[in-house]
Amino acid sequence: MTLDDLIEAAWREDIAHGDLTTDACVDPEKVGEGFIVAKENLVVSGLVPAKRLFWLKGAGFEPLVEDGAHVVAGTKLARVHGLLARILMCERIALNFMMRLSGIATQTSLLVGEARDADIRIVDTRKTTPLHRELEKAAVVHGGGHNHRFGLFDGVMIKDNHIKAVGSITKAVERARKNVHHLVKIEVEVEDLEQLDEALAAGADVVLLDNMDDKTIKAACAQAAGRAILEASGNMDAARIASLKDVVGLDVISVGGLIHQARWADLSLRFV
Amino acid sequence: MTLDDLIEAAWREDIAHGDLTTDACVDPEKVGEGFIVAKENLVVSGLVPAKRLFWLKGAGFEPLVEDGAHVVAGTKLARVHGLLARILMCERIALNFMMRLSGIATQTSLLVGEARDADIRIVDTRKTTPLHRELEKAAVVHGGGHNHRFGLFDGVMIKDNHIKAVGSITKAVERARKNVHHLVKIEVEVEDLEQLDEALAAGADVVLLDNMDDKTIKAACAQAAGRAILEASGNMDAARIASLKDVVGLDVISVGGLIHQARWADLSLRFV
Amino acid sequence: MTLDDLIEAAWREDIAHGDLTTDACVDPEKVGEGFIVAKENLVVSGLVPAKRLFWLKGAGFEPLVEDGAHVVAGTKLARVHGLLARILMCERIALNFMMRLSGIATQTSLLVGEARDADIRIVDTRKTTPLHRELEKAAVVHGGGHNHRFGLFDGVMIKDNHIKAVGSITKAVERARKNVHHLVKIEVEVEDLEQLDEALAAGADVVLLDNMDDKTIKAACAQAAGRAILEASGNMDAARIASLKDVVGLDVISVGGLIHQARWADLSLRFV
Amino acid sequence: MTLDDLIEAAWREDIAHGDLTTDACVDPEKVGEGFIVAKENLVVSGLVPAKRLFWLKGAGFEPLVEDGAHVVAGTKLARVHGLLARILMCERIALNFMMRLSGIATQTSLLVGEARDADIRIVDTRKTTPLHRELEKAAVVHGGGHNHRFGLFDGVMIKDNHIKAVGSITKAVERARKNVHHLVKIEVEVEDLEQLDEALAAGADVVLLDNMDDKTIKAACAQAAGRAILEASGNMDAARIASLKDVVGLDVISVGGLIHQARWADLSLRFV
Amino acid sequence: MTLDDLIEAAWREDIAHGDLTTDACVDPEKVGEGFIVAKENLVVSGLVPAKRLFWLKGAGFEPLVEDGAHVVAGTKLARVHGLLARILMCERIALNFMMRLSGIATQTSLLVGEARDADIRIVDTRKTTPLHRELEKAAVVHGGGHNHRFGLFDGVMIKDNHIKAVGSITKAVERARKNVHHLVKIEVEVEDLEQLDEALAAGADVVLLDNMDDKTIKAACAQAAGRAILEASGNMDAARIASLKDVVGLDVISVGGLIHQARWADLSLRFV
Amino acid sequence: MTLDDLIEAAWREDIAHGDLTTDACVDPEKVGEGFIVAKENLVVSGLVPAKRLFWLKGAGFEPLVEDGAHVVAGTKLARVHGLLARILMCERIALNFMMRLSGIATQTSLLVGEARDADIRIVDTRKTTPLHRELEKAAVVHGGGHNHRFGLFDGVMIKDNHIKAVGSITKAVERARKNVHHLVKIEVEVEDLEQLDEALAAGADVVLLDNMDDKTIKAACAQAAGRAILEASGNMDAARIASLKDVVGLDVISVGGLIHQARWADLSLRFV
Repeated sequence: MTLDDLIEAAWREDIAHGDLTTDACVDPEKVGEGFIVAKENLVVSGLVPAKRLFWLKGAGFEPLVEDGAHVVAGTKLARVHGLLARILMCERIALNFMMRLSGIATQTSLLVGEARDADIRIVDTRKTTPLHRELEKAAVVHGGGHNHRFGLFDGVMIKDNHIKAVGSITKAVERARKNVHHLVKIEVEVEDLEQLDEALAAGADVVLLDNMDDKTIKAACAQAAGRAILEASGNMDAARIASLKDVVGLDVISVGGLIHQARWADLSLRFV
Repeated sequence: MTLDDLIEAAWREDIAHGDLTTDACVDPEKVGEGFIVAKENLVVSGLVPAKRLFWLKGAGFEPLVEDGAHVVAGTKLARVHGLLARILMCERIALNFMMRLSGIATQTSLLVGEARDADIRIVDTRKTTPLHRELEKAAVVHGGGHNHRFGLFDGVMIKDNHIKAVGSITKAVERARKNVHHLVKIEVEVEDLEQLDEALAAGADVVLLDNMDDKTIKAACAQAAGRAILEASGNMDAARIASLKDVVGLDVISVGGLIHQARWADLSLRFV
Repeated sequence: MTLDDLIEAAWREDIAHGDLTTDACVDPEKVGEGFIVAKENLVVSGLVPAKRLFWLKGAGFEPLVEDGAHVVAGTKLARVHGLLARILMCERIALNFMMRLSGIATQTSLLVGEARDADIRIVDTRKTTPLHRELEKAAVVHGGGHNHRFGLFDGVMIKDNHIKAVGSITKAVERARKNVHHLVKIEVEVEDLEQLDEALAAGADVVLLDNMDDKTIKAACAQAAGRAILEASGNMDAARIASLKDVVGLDVISVGGLIHQARWADLSLRFV
Repeated sequence: MTLDDLIEAAWREDIAHGDLTTDACVDPEKVGEGFIVAKENLVVSGLVPAKRLFWLKGAGFEPLVEDGAHVVAGTKLARVHGLLARILMCERIALNFMMRLSGIATQTSLLVGEARDADIRIVDTRKTTPLHRELEKAAVVHGGGHNHRFGLFDGVMIKDNHIKAVGSITKAVERARKNVHHLVKIEVEVEDLEQLDEALAAGADVVLLDNMDDKTIKAACAQAAGRAILEASGNMDAARIASLKDVVGLDVISVGGLIHQARWADLSLRFV
Repeated sequence: MTLDDLIEAAWREDIAHGDLTTDACVDPEKVGEGFIVAKENLVVSGLVPAKRLFWLKGAGFEPLVEDGAHVVAGTKLARVHGLLARILMCERIALNFMMRLSGIATQTSLLVGEARDADIRIVDTRKTTPLHRELEKAAVVHGGGHNHRFGLFDGVMIKDNHIKAVGSITKAVERARKNVHHLVKIEVEVEDLEQLDEALAAGADVVLLDNMDDKTIKAACAQAAGRAILEASGNMDAARIASLKDVVGLDVISVGGLIHQARWADLSLRFV
Repeated sequence: MTLDDLIEAAWREDIAHGDLTTDACVDPEKVGEGFIVAKENLVVSGLVPAKRLFWLKGAGFEPLVEDGAHVVAGTKLARVHGLLARILMCERIALNFMMRLSGIATQTSLLVGEARDADIRIVDTRKTTPLHRELEKAAVVHGGGHNHRFGLFDGVMIKDNHIKAVGSITKAVERARKNVHHLVKIEVEVEDLEQLDEALAAGADVVLLDNMDDKTIKAACAQAAGRAILEASGNMDAARIASLKDVVGLDVISVGGLIHQARWADLSLRFV
């Protein structure tokens, strides 16, 4: 689904055959102007779908900051202008995009802040809202995070069930190597140091240390000794990120909560 | 966008031309079985899209509870079965639907609980995730809440900007009455008691008391004396709901936070 | 389906991979001009889809009157101009929209004329051509009529079968009230005065007097005494409208024939 | 647009996110049965889309007559059965298809009846409702008529404007012959006998005698002497059809009014 | 599927949520310029989809030759310009269209050249790439060939299986004549001279001489004596075309290999 | 575009509103049976879309071999059965898929055969038919080849223009590494040994040796000494593949001609 299709579907969802109130009350040729304003401190995301919505529906949207900007309450994020009726119809949809995505960027910024100055990537997961993955992953970047693979099609992640289905980590890696193209890396999820050994021996490019305690993670990093990219995951929050950020040899921490624990940021559209 | 279209688009978003790992590692004819399990206490929502996804993709999904059930951590919510490869491909998408929606139902249940035994409706708003409004509004009902209008097309809500555009509340109500069909009620947003008077005199069916303090709300209810349905809104949280639930004459409290302050509930799919 | 989708589908239906005649005979860069002309007295409707079609396909369409205008035979309704080949390809589709919709507006005007000066609404029904409801309901307005609900989603209409399914009018109204949002009115279809009493007692907002003779309708209006909006329906034609228009207490007459008894108005495109 | 797409769009148009009344009042597992009944004498059309709609939405539709049947008032056309809620949601859409199409079949039957026993085809035109052409042309066949070309892509029809654009009938026919594939016939619209001569000399396969009076049509038929298929058109109604049906050499009369002068036939769905 | 839909789908196929390399490496505001250059002698086709792709994606495409041009290696076919990132994303898709279609035009030109100066049409068949028929048939015309019918809907072709299903050629032609509109010609496929006789007697407009040797084709042409258009088919290659091109009475040779034996022409995009 | 969407669009392309011949001549309830037969030696591909087409349109398709099978002329590839009219309508579309794809599989098999027993991958490129990439890449696998990345979204390939845009290979690799997720490998296209050095030093995972002669390729392999995956490309044909297949250190040869130089394989559907 393209961004335009997403926006058009959002429009139809909210407006269908008409905005009863605006159609009845607002002169269709009256023009107006307003500002989208932050009502709390936040990191901005969602300017792209909001601007595109206004453009598709024939109104103006002029961003006053950029996605990724850290702003304080009261900051004007964008100026909207044009036919008042059009602005009123776009208002809620645009804010729904921006409030959700700014919420994710803000939440990401908070968690990524725990690893400031450390040489480690905080990345998202595939726990995203259906049809909003591209936007949510962009919001993670706006908040200072990095992305993991986009979907099941652009990276191999061999988990417990795949291993069981094939028989062993070794066989699973071998099969994956044989079947996927030569630009795809292979990641293996391991639960203990023994599995880590097997994954490294099998030639995994990346190893996911799943649900291990800090001590085991450190042991794993030592054991791997740079032979693969190492990623830690499993209910990561601010405290865990802080405690792991300086572990030598740990490259990546993946955190579903960048997205799924975010609340919407508070924005409003104020007319002049 | 129909539910089927939403699900198909979610599938394409995550899988596109293939699940590299499963395609490479899992025998396409191997069958399996698993359970979707609550990892915390929660109110269930999302069984419909999850079941439909499994059906569309050729796997079995048997709900073990109903949407709206209050369950404790460890409860099995559904049994999935069929081709292992298909289950693995549906897993994340189904959980993304269910975790989001159960999060909303759980959040709603919490807030609605503040008004238990009171004769007042706690309703949602149009602050919903684009393309997920129907599902999110269902989750609100699963959590014990009620819905407000679905979109701009099935109810009139005259706000500040509409009033300014027409000139007065009286004229706005008159225009709306003239233009909309005779099964649509007209709601007017008012900011003070003077506006309330005008709205009532104009024949508003519903009046929205926007951002008033408790005292003003009580005065408004007394003043209206049953001449219209009264709704209060504006940053409503648990405390405000508790303090307003027994106000005589207040019929509805609308709470965006049922949806936009909800975090995802924690679920996992465990294979047998 | 958006208007643009409807128009694009109409284009593909008529033209598919090409207009054999025009492609073969007309210089693709030759420009021309013409007028859409009324060949009989009529009320205009359909300028919006016609203009949009021309715009989408790269030709000019300049309305010379407005939708809702009452015009005499010979009146020029619009000027078209641009690439001759494009005009020739748009001609039939544009006329098909305009002739149908002007036919409905004209038929509506005729029937609404029977209630001129009376304080009663003549409204349409859900008997509309699939995918053309929005346009046809607009044509009814152009002809001086009003609209009933748009579909099954923006108003409650409890009919015989719903009553049977629940057990009584009282229970049906109660259930509807409980389930729908607070901006939706509830209409109950009744066949006699006893049912009317029950509907009013149950708190119906609107009552549909179905297939009653004039005498019974008058008795019903007296009995209701303003407690609900009253609507009469059932094979309403010009004579019935004339005989009912001044019944005190009758608010609405719904007439399927505004749309389903309309014939196409006669228009043609004449090149200069 | 496929039939399924048309039906799904019609469903979304009428029902969108729900049938408020049925959802609130009807037990989702209650089953029922009913009949679609003719309320006047008519020729049946529309069973195919009606049946397909019921099938797509999970209810049963069993035709009791065939498309094209001539039935008297009171005849049961189809039995519907299954979940009552589903039947109620399909009812209006199915009737909207069937009433429109049976109206066209009935109107066609009336006009075609004027040419009974004559060896002449009464055919439709491209004056059809956008997106319903396939169904409407089928209704014409059900009523005993024949079809003209489907659209601009499956036949050449050289009209006045094409002739002007090229310079002469002769050149237009030549260009068309050169450009279209060898299974397409070329029809030329002529306004007088001189043009007829030129069209015949140019090798037109079919000649359209446009807006000629009866005398000229007869002269044209004599003049053509079988060298081309001859078609007459221009505001054809019952009387003109009757007066032209036995003209020697006239093969086809095209009548837009088969479709655009048809009113809906009267049907209802009666539950048992 | 419209050309725009085809192009948009091609874009999504190749790019989906992003061009990883360009997004990472190319300044989004850097502009550039380049040329699409023939790397071998060829006949040009595909400028229309290529130009439209660039336009839809916001880059410039200026054809320097026309479709159908015969060019030598080294010829610049088009100039592209605009945002470098956009050009890089369009490059492969545009070349995929142009290389395929120029390959077909070139192959057609080669085979049609065998019948140079002869009064016979070399036409394509329905052996085309799904969803590319319109483009491929245009490429055949660019290469100097002609088209056969577009699909199953714009011409009747009675083959062996249809004849068996009905009982005889005579009955099949009769049924087809009765059912199709009067602008459609009827073609009958025959395997010997006896069938030819029956087809001519039945009034076939076109006869397809299927898989006959040269001698039989000549006999068939003599026997038909101009009573129908005659078409020869069956594994036609350059040699057969050359040997048949001057057969008196043979009008058409249909050659699947215009399309299905074509290889892609070699083009590249060179940046300035 | 899903496979089903591709198939439905192919159906509409060929059949639109009807198969004139079959509709007119074939009893809609007559059943039949036939076989899809190889008319030359070939490698099979395309059974999946062909089978799905038959299923979607209500006819039976039973494969008698598997995709990837090497068969001799005369082999029956599949049995089709069911309603004769349906089989006739599916025939051409199914063969168009199978003939194209079997042509690619056969061509691939031929070229891959040149590297038999060598430890090197012969892979495709992005030179594929728009909207058919997934099927064509599957055909390459059926023919014994491997795939390169699917599109611009699942692998980084830094070419000349990207390098110019950034300034150096080193910077381009650095930027790519920073921006893409950690499961994506980075490939750099180099034209000489100096660039190879820079790419290896920058940490490229894969290096594409573009348009080098055999001698330079060997030197490059020696110089790389296993520090990256090495791929050779540039007008690779059978002879080049044979001459390069045993070069030590060369891992991959990419060959656009697997697809773009393939002709359709010859198949026919024979009725019993």
